[in-house]
Amino acid sequence: MTEKIHPFDQALALTANTDGSFQGEITPAYANMVGPFGGVVSAAMLKAVTTHTQAVGVPGALTVNFVAPIAEAPFQITTRLVKTNRTNQHWLVELSQQGEIACTATVLMVVKREVWSDQELRMPSVAPAEELEAFQFPMGPTWLKQYEFKFINGALTLSGQALADSESMVWVRDAVSRPLDYLSLAACSDVFFPRSFVKTQTFGMAGTVSLTTYFHADEASLAEQGTDSILGVARGQRFAHGYFDQSAELWSKTGELLATSMQLVYYK
Amino acid sequence: MTEKIHPFDQALALTANTDGSFQGEITPAYANMVGPFGGVVSAAMLKAVTTHTQAVGVPGALTVNFVAPIAEAPFQITTRLVKTNRTNQHWLVELSQQGEIACTATVLMVVKREVWSDQELRMPSVAPAEELEAFQFPMGPTWLKQYEFKFINGALTLSGQALADSESMVWVRDAVSRPLDYLSLAACSDVFFPRSFVKTQTFGMAGTVSLTTYFHADEASLAEQGTDSILGVARGQRFAHGYFDQSAELWSKTGELLATSMQLVYYK
Repeated sequence: MTEKIHPFDQALALTANTDGSFQGEITPAYANMVGPFGGVVSAAMLKAVTTHTQAVGVPGALTVNFVAPIAEAPFQITTRLVKTNRTNQHWLVELSQQGEIACTATVLMVVKREVWSDQELRMPSVAPAEELEAFQFPMGPTWLKQYEFKFINGALTLSGQALADSESMVWVRDAVSRPLDYLSLAACSDVFFPRSFVKTQTFGMAGTVSLTTYFHADEASLAEQGTDSILGVARGQRFAHGYFDQSAELWSKTGELLATSMQLVYYK
Repeated sequence: MTEKIHPFDQALALTANTDGSFQGEITPAYANMVGPFGGVVSAAMLKAVTTHTQAVGVPGALTVNFVAPIAEAPFQITTRLVKTNRTNQHWLVELSQQGEIACTATVLMVVKREVWSDQELRMPSVAPAEELEAFQFPMGPTWLKQYEFKFINGALTLSGQALADSESMVWVRDAVSRPLDYLSLAACSDVFFPRSFVKTQTFGMAGTVSLTTYFHADEASLAEQGTDSILGVARGQRFAHGYFDQSAELWSKTGELLATSMQLVYYK
């Protein structure tokens, strides 16, 4: 009997080349409108570091720059360990297709230490995921099917009726159960539609150019979360001159801030 | 008669080497507790791109990773143009001292376009800078003297009496008048004390590890701002396991969101 590989892990399968680089290809299950879903690309960039033999600690920060369109085709990821310090490690990562760079990333790995702690940001008071219906998207790219979305507000109904603000609050988890880990948390930081779509309630032209995620969760909090829904909150702050910023929070079911994120998005 | 060079521009003086790299050295005026003020280092990383002959557009996003302590000594900055697209450009930047990398950055340059725009985030309602007294720090590193700070809340009094939250709102500008530009905006995104200091109202051990800034301002809004104070707002979101995130907003005097920023900070 063989255990079935989860679609997310299939998409993230990386093969080590003899020169230390990795070979991969995002599966069609995670196809976006053009190329693969950016969240799964980000997770692949991160995985090339976390599975590296020289990696120390757990993800602390991830910045992914989407340099060029990524084709639904094989890619190569190269990693470069810039520096290992006592409590962290800096990496540069590049994804290329046919010799052309399509994506760069910086990854900070951290060794978590027990010091004083505090959480200033509070989880919004919302109905629990169990009490809400899963949202059925009227249309959209394939990758949406890999997640279960339960919106509190800011769903994309494609009504064409513009909203005053672009905030979305949504319970989200893998459609096929999978325990939360750093890779899926990285992917979830990009699980929100571009705020310009939500604001205008139409599909427009938009694409993430740069995405930064900070990971606050440790292994214990990920284990506690398990396969349950996390609460995602995303907001647009300013839309100007063809670029807007989107800030996001990812919350555990018990109100722990698992990750915070921000991205700059090209829009028309 | 020669015009006196502003301290900020003195600190950011870069000399082009024949191999395309730059030579620089942050002046003692911007000394921090260890090495130079991170904001001016970030500005130097950005300047190596904006003054590059191949640069197109204006700064859109800047992520700076502080890899190792930077000495108050000469440094070399190398830039690599990863890709020029129709409306943006991706750069990788490295700062090294004596052959060792101390800092890496990714820079996104953007060509601003006129499309629909909206600002969802609203400037906090605060007293104008003219009505407030400049804050006199009881002690602190040299770089503080290069700015004028007028706090609305969250000043660092070193009372040792812990605050419930770490929010600061502060009007800030160069102590010696200088019109705002992208470089000084980049520096100002790091002008806030670590939130752990504000929270505990003591100097502790803390250092920025990764800093991301998105620039929303265009040349016209920078020109309109001129030499007046901008309003900085900074908040800590979660302090855990030795790292906390600090989100920041930089506002023009007229309520325009000039830049948004987030950083991950090591603390004890």
